[in-house]
Amino acid sequence: MFNKIEKVRFKHVDYAGIVFYPRFLEMLNDLVEDWFEEALERPFSKIHETNGIPTVDLKVQFKKAARIGDELTKSLWVSKLGGASVTCGFKFSHENDTILEGEVTLVNVSLNKGTTELKAEPFSLETRERIQQFVIT
Amino acid sequence: MFNKIEKVRFKHVDYAGIVFYPRFLEMLNDLVEDWFEEALERPFSKIHETNGIPTVDLKVQFKKAARIGDELTKSLWVSKLGGASVTCGFKFSHENDTILEGEVTLVNVSLNKGTTELKAEPFSLETRERIQQFVIT
Amino acid sequence: MFNKIEKVRFKHVDYAGIVFYPRFLEMLNDLVEDWFEEALERPFSKIHETNGIPTVDLKVQFKKAARIGDELTKSLWVSKLGGASVTCGFKFSHENDTILEGEVTLVNVSLNKGTTELKAEPFSLETRERIQQFVIT
Amino acid sequence: MFNKIEKVRFKHVDYAGIVFYPRFLEMLNDLVEDWFEEALERPFSKIHETNGIPTVDLKVQFKKAARIGDELTKSLWVSKLGGASVTCGFKFSHENDTILEGEVTLVNVSLNKGTTELKAEPFSLETRERIQQFVIT
Repeated sequence: MFNKIEKVRFKHVDYAGIVFYPRFLEMLNDLVEDWFEEALERPFSKIHETNGIPTVDLKVQFKKAARIGDELTKSLWVSKLGGASVTCGFKFSHENDTILEGEVTLVNVSLNKGTTELKAEPFSLETRERIQQFVIT
Repeated sequence: MFNKIEKVRFKHVDYAGIVFYPRFLEMLNDLVEDWFEEALERPFSKIHETNGIPTVDLKVQFKKAARIGDELTKSLWVSKLGGASVTCGFKFSHENDTILEGEVTLVNVSLNKGTTELKAEPFSLETRERIQQFVIT
Repeated sequence: MFNKIEKVRFKHVDYAGIVFYPRFLEMLNDLVEDWFEEALERPFSKIHETNGIPTVDLKVQFKKAARIGDELTKSLWVSKLGGASVTCGFKFSHENDTILEGEVTLVNVSLNKGTTELKAEPFSLETRERIQQFVIT
Repeated sequence: MFNKIEKVRFKHVDYAGIVFYPRFLEMLNDLVEDWFEEALERPFSKIHETNGIPTVDLKVQFKKAARIGDELTKSLWVSKLGGASVTCGFKFSHENDTILEGEVTLVNVSLNKGTTELKAEPFSLETRERIQQFVIT
């Protein structure tokens, strides 16, 4: 599993004092970004010259509210690896509570700024091998 | 069905020139907010003095990229109405294309700023009747 | 003056129930984007293929809090027009109150995705003439 | 001076591949939040039960674009300390370049959720003394 800590900040919470859920998904995107950079050696700063990894499917169950100052442990693993796509399980927890959990599917695409088309493109063998280390069955 | 138009703006798009998916969920939250205000007569400006409507479950399939200037039609309907919860189907489309579709479950809770607890509370009969007009079976 | 209305939404407000100031600057960016599209006929969807208009200077005085449901009138005018830059005055008001006011300077640049350089480039004569109609002295 | 490092992420950048300026102001708010928690011992998680620190004045000069992966050093100091307000200078830099610099004025207010009024309230003596350690003249 790939794990990161993120603290709930003022900018994340809404009028009720709890994290506004689109902010949770920014936190999830940060987790995927860290995973690509730190574990897969595919930093987004390089990747986006030629490729993108759009999210095509997302399922989240929000179990418990999170509040300013809470230190969340964000965990990510791979539940399914396809040719050009990867499905990751994820969980955010605080102390002994699960805050949220879900599944996100990303597709590797080649980008062409001149066109409006995104084309699926298989992961390189190298990236594929690194992803495989996070498969949990 | 409850429908609203929203134009994709500069702030919504990422480096690849397509909508960054947490921004789609801000658009979805705006749609729910408009539905509560315009159709259910429960404006968030009033609701949040005593209640909240946290999202507890979310499923989204992102079908096609959206770009700056695209006018999206956002549609929402009710697929399941429980005592204190409501599950809504939603779809964002652009011209003849489905950009995304999914399902979101909201729970009506009473808020108590002094405590960290959120308690489920049944919708009022009046709100319930208004919600029922959007049920599609 | 160029005017637009924007309603304060749930996503804009913080734990104190008032607009979180970075959200005011997203609203300001939307105002500039609308001005370029509707008044200057330079929609951001076209502009960003070859050019950008980064903000180089910003001054804001926040006078009064704004809350969910408040309908803000956002106004923009030109206080100074340079060769490749324009300084705009702006004001957000609610009923008889000024919520904020300030000044923002934008520079027209040519973009080259392949390099890290942004180069100032004079506005076209056509754009210049349209900008001039908003000069208030 | 109070210093923090923040890395530019995918969520911060726009279509041109550079940080969208409202995101810089979220980074600034994070810096102020860290300063209150780590240096002034006034964490926002506690402060917001009874008080707020709204921003009343902001001046920023954006000097150079920042891109995904750039590690920014964010610095903050005090240029003026009033009874209930504090004016902070700030600078974000990357390697030897200044990305932005400016000045922000915050006011300590007491919050009353029941009313729409924010009232200025002097900083406590303890907080005042901690702030004074960051005064640069």
